[in-house]
Amino acid sequence: MSRVFNFAAGPAMMPEEALERAAAEMLSYKGTGMSVMEMSHRSSAYQEIFDRTVRLLRELMGIPDEYEVLLLQGGATGQFAAVPMNLLKTGADYVDSGNFAHGAFVEAQKYGNARVIASSREESYARVPDVDAGAIDPDADYVYITTNNTIYGTRFTRLPDCGKVPLVADMSSNILSEPYDVRDFGVIFAGAQKNIGPAGLTVVVVRKDLLGHARPDTPKIFDWAKQAQAGSMLNTPATYAIYMAGLCLEWLKKEGGVRVICMRNQVKAKLLYDFLDESRLFRGTAARESRSLMNVTFRTPSPETDAAFVKFAAAQGLVNLKGHRLVGGMRASIYNAMPVEGVTRLVEAMKQFEAEGIAR
Amino acid sequence: MSRVFNFAAGPAMMPEEALERAAAEMLSYKGTGMSVMEMSHRSSAYQEIFDRTVRLLRELMGIPDEYEVLLLQGGATGQFAAVPMNLLKTGADYVDSGNFAHGAFVEAQKYGNARVIASSREESYARVPDVDAGAIDPDADYVYITTNNTIYGTRFTRLPDCGKVPLVADMSSNILSEPYDVRDFGVIFAGAQKNIGPAGLTVVVVRKDLLGHARPDTPKIFDWAKQAQAGSMLNTPATYAIYMAGLCLEWLKKEGGVRVICMRNQVKAKLLYDFLDESRLFRGTAARESRSLMNVTFRTPSPETDAAFVKFAAAQGLVNLKGHRLVGGMRASIYNAMPVEGVTRLVEAMKQFEAEGIAR
Repeated sequence: MSRVFNFAAGPAMMPEEALERAAAEMLSYKGTGMSVMEMSHRSSAYQEIFDRTVRLLRELMGIPDEYEVLLLQGGATGQFAAVPMNLLKTGADYVDSGNFAHGAFVEAQKYGNARVIASSREESYARVPDVDAGAIDPDADYVYITTNNTIYGTRFTRLPDCGKVPLVADMSSNILSEPYDVRDFGVIFAGAQKNIGPAGLTVVVVRKDLLGHARPDTPKIFDWAKQAQAGSMLNTPATYAIYMAGLCLEWLKKEGGVRVICMRNQVKAKLLYDFLDESRLFRGTAARESRSLMNVTFRTPSPETDAAFVKFAAAQGLVNLKGHRLVGGMRASIYNAMPVEGVTRLVEAMKQFEAEGIAR
Repeated sequence: MSRVFNFAAGPAMMPEEALERAAAEMLSYKGTGMSVMEMSHRSSAYQEIFDRTVRLLRELMGIPDEYEVLLLQGGATGQFAAVPMNLLKTGADYVDSGNFAHGAFVEAQKYGNARVIASSREESYARVPDVDAGAIDPDADYVYITTNNTIYGTRFTRLPDCGKVPLVADMSSNILSEPYDVRDFGVIFAGAQKNIGPAGLTVVVVRKDLLGHARPDTPKIFDWAKQAQAGSMLNTPATYAIYMAGLCLEWLKKEGGVRVICMRNQVKAKLLYDFLDESRLFRGTAARESRSLMNVTFRTPSPETDAAFVKFAAAQGLVNLKGHRLVGGMRASIYNAMPVEGVTRLVEAMKQFEAEGIAR
């Protein structure tokens, strides 16, 4: 059972020991005689599992008591609607830094006055746009950003100064990868399938004073205040995904938490970017000042050579390096669970491919 | 690793061989070198898994080509909003046969003119109400029913005659347990966590002519037409839950499909109801003509004796028999994956408890 290095953008690699625990506990969780999948979400055995996941999230992200942690369904795309449904009254300011940011803006327009205050759309999202503090309406309900742009391989290296306006962040593709001060945000949300756990779980961290203002026609599963009141169990949550997230977070804690994993992520990203900066064949596509630690996008001079490299790498157990269909090229997603060894081997493969290609 | 008989109302027992397969494939699915949880939803390996689950659902339920099958998130409660958002224009007729039916009605009122045309609420939902064909507005956008009422242990034994008005059914707690003609419905939806697979997956079966009429402010993940167009992948679906559902459906197919499992379900239910009808201590709480095949509700003369029996049964590995907090008493949920042996042992335990209790 040889495992590959999986550079997929998400769902993506998970810690092997979390998977091993899950396999071992599949038919009977800690003497209960049942799988976690078979547990009533109202049982005390399951509530412990749920609480542990929330506790680990709070600990690893340093989430203060004045924030609720909700474990919901529907993905980040579901929150593209839930955010304006819960918060948008007079107007909201969106930063259009990529495809998902744009999708969130389009969705928000269904519910009110959403404006784009900064955009790199015209530059094919090769960098994160500057946000001029003067562009933010001081009366806006919120400012919206996407901290890391999965498709383009860019990230905010500095948060916009929003004054008293709450900052809402889609952190799907870099949550738990580097330290953030939760107090800088009004709301953080993330689909789990990159750095938290399996797909089908959505984490929402929301400052308590922002609860209770949902539109009357908000579907109740999207009403943060109602979900907070029900302990995220207004209906049956994604019980097994929450358990798996707990196992992954335990691994992260054991590895040393976010500060330590961030150092490792920086090492991994630097290995790739340093090589890209010196390579004669491969070049990085994201603007240097916006480079992501999680998704490294690059290309060769031709789509044919790109395809040849993707195939060459796959033969060495380095899989899913093809870039997103919107941008082409290659993308190496190197989330928390990607070992340094995977990146080292990728760089080796790139060097070998380049040397052999040049020799030809 | 001794397994218990788990009578929980959902999440609930799953076929042991599905869990065994999942455990065996956890670290590497069929030589891919990765867990299904780690697979990109856009990969061909995963698409095969997804397609197999849909194919099995179509085959087992006999879903004709003129219906779409969507694999979504958010649970049945999410669909309480999605149904009116996709279908409600002038008015919809709801049958209020239980707590979830009532919740669906309340949610629908957010989006337009929803009416209750039949209700057993005043009778504590002990039976499914009669639906007078004359009560249905021939111009209604749809008629809404809950085919099986999990909390009260009742079910529709005959579908209402809706003429040309599409019938929408929440089939969460009895889907795949007995044969239905899908053509009798405009829409069938179900949370997976009773007879399909793990929590976090929602199946929607919708007649194609009902697509494309969603309100403009429908969150896009709830827009059935958009999801149909995107093959249920408008965003990342609950990939692992869909895989597990496939394993459970394979088991059901091997057992002989819905017709065979229905005979077994009838045997299981009859074992319990026959005993309840003759017992001097226990009595069934659902009206005889509305008795569910999936959730058998019963009680003794006192809450103390109820609690004593729940404890007595648990000591024998017959767990989660406590009734829903709204109704008290006991509830034995005997979904497809509950073996006949579990029910036999439950009846034995009831007999033993009764005999000893009477002897005391």
